[in-house]
Amino acid sequence: MTKQDLLDTYNRVKPYVHNTPILTSRLVNEHVEAQVYFKCENFQRAGAYKIRGATNAIMQLSEDQKKNGVVTHSSGNFAQALSLAAKSLGIKAYIVMPSNAPKVKREAVLEYGGEIIECEPTIEARQHAADEIVKSTGATFIHPSNHPDVILGQGTAAYELLEKIPDLDYIICPVGGGGLIAGTALVGTYFSEHCKVIGTEPFEADDAYRSLISGKIESNITANTIADGLRTQLGSHNFPIIKEHVSEIIRVTENDIIEAMKFIWERMKIIIEPSSAVAFAGVVKQESQFKNKKIGVIISGGNVDVTNLPF
Amino acid sequence: MTKQDLLDTYNRVKPYVHNTPILTSRLVNEHVEAQVYFKCENFQRAGAYKIRGATNAIMQLSEDQKKNGVVTHSSGNFAQALSLAAKSLGIKAYIVMPSNAPKVKREAVLEYGGEIIECEPTIEARQHAADEIVKSTGATFIHPSNHPDVILGQGTAAYELLEKIPDLDYIICPVGGGGLIAGTALVGTYFSEHCKVIGTEPFEADDAYRSLISGKIESNITANTIADGLRTQLGSHNFPIIKEHVSEIIRVTENDIIEAMKFIWERMKIIIEPSSAVAFAGVVKQESQFKNKKIGVIISGGNVDVTNLPF
Repeated sequence: MTKQDLLDTYNRVKPYVHNTPILTSRLVNEHVEAQVYFKCENFQRAGAYKIRGATNAIMQLSEDQKKNGVVTHSSGNFAQALSLAAKSLGIKAYIVMPSNAPKVKREAVLEYGGEIIECEPTIEARQHAADEIVKSTGATFIHPSNHPDVILGQGTAAYELLEKIPDLDYIICPVGGGGLIAGTALVGTYFSEHCKVIGTEPFEADDAYRSLISGKIESNITANTIADGLRTQLGSHNFPIIKEHVSEIIRVTENDIIEAMKFIWERMKIIIEPSSAVAFAGVVKQESQFKNKKIGVIISGGNVDVTNLPF
Repeated sequence: MTKQDLLDTYNRVKPYVHNTPILTSRLVNEHVEAQVYFKCENFQRAGAYKIRGATNAIMQLSEDQKKNGVVTHSSGNFAQALSLAAKSLGIKAYIVMPSNAPKVKREAVLEYGGEIIECEPTIEARQHAADEIVKSTGATFIHPSNHPDVILGQGTAAYELLEKIPDLDYIICPVGGGGLIAGTALVGTYFSEHCKVIGTEPFEADDAYRSLISGKIESNITANTIADGLRTQLGSHNFPIIKEHVSEIIRVTENDIIEAMKFIWERMKIIIEPSSAVAFAGVVKQESQFKNKKIGVIISGGNVDVTNLPF
């Protein structure tokens, strides 16, 4: 994936995504003794950065492929994002969701026009159901994170951030399936001379941290983390990029995540989901490393059940 | 208070307050079938518009008065705002707070450098304690809402809003002590040809609604509303302005307020306090009146205990 691929991607998806605001806070900066720039993808369409990659992947399909629609399996933000991106582009989206997916997530998918196919709550059942849809409808399968066009699309958030704040020392983002961090790392490499890209993970789902040590994709045996977007593992398309371009993975505890989330809510007055709080928790945890630096933090999303909070 | 007074006020306080962002949301606009511009004073310093009036009032003091500091009685946003404004301007702030004020509010005042004087939780005790401070220290009493310089300062939020969106049909804001609505109404009159200013109130504290009917300042016998910033009544300085320049007061139920607050949290991903939700609840309630109009909604503040929510 080249610098030109990223520029083309940005120009392609620009009309369909928000150039989200970058917020700063004096109080936050004093707290961590650094200059922090929050790229607010919680204000993005469908409440998370995922619409970027979903839009790009759909736009790269041929006209024939578009006629048959797209399919993915997700119970999270990508399900909503693909539904909305497909609707905006006038094509059909099939979303395979486990039967135990929260009602609020099902409703969001339906609201954005996606068609839900229920399956048993196992990885095998999800993939099997998606394969069946591909067979019966001719829809194209779009993986939520391990897909080149998704990775390129997710990178556009960091591109917008560097466009406005070009002299960042670091960009920090959470690591789940690896789409966001891979796209961000490519952008950091191509569009900045010295900006390092750092990933953050819960200790409870530290597969990326372990993967960088072992040199192969590791899984999470359990993933008991409140950061529900980060329970997944890396993939064949994004892992090589992460290995080459990500300088470090910081791990944080569940308590770090909840503290960071509450701090951002109270001080910034913005609603961020636990997975997003993981990035700022990493800054707090390694404060001395970031002292007096300019840091971009990608607030990946704001989809959280406000009637069921961890504080 | 003249147009020039407002311009002077704006130029005076500008270096000390944030020109807060104006947010819009496609989903919100579709929901109410109007174009809504949210002036986000929840992102203001100390989390509410109150810093505007507090700053202006302090800056209008003589050098001799400044030496002795300022005093107010408040258990809400004005306590924090006066503390922070005084700190920014290098003067002393005494804050009279009832002994039953929430710990979180006391801590915020202390953090912003205010000195707390505790009193019994009655209106008489509050005024008495403030009078004592004036006598013993020579500090100047600044009323949270019924003070000409406070009214002018609060108007600067609407001024910034009209500067960016000049062709608004309505500006809607909540009515508590009357400082914000009076300042907003003056700005609407002086800086727009046709923009109407509307106030919103809980039914449970509808003193302004009743005051406009009776032609004199009415009180709330009870004020059992979740909108804790709106339990107070109008004053001698702001009531005449409100009578002349406010076109209407819309009243909403407690349920309307909670629904509006939850809707904004979930859809806009921003944290607003119940008093702020009252303004948007008014838009939802009288949707047909606002259909296809351009509406500015002042989100007055975001200071809410996130561990104790009404949903």
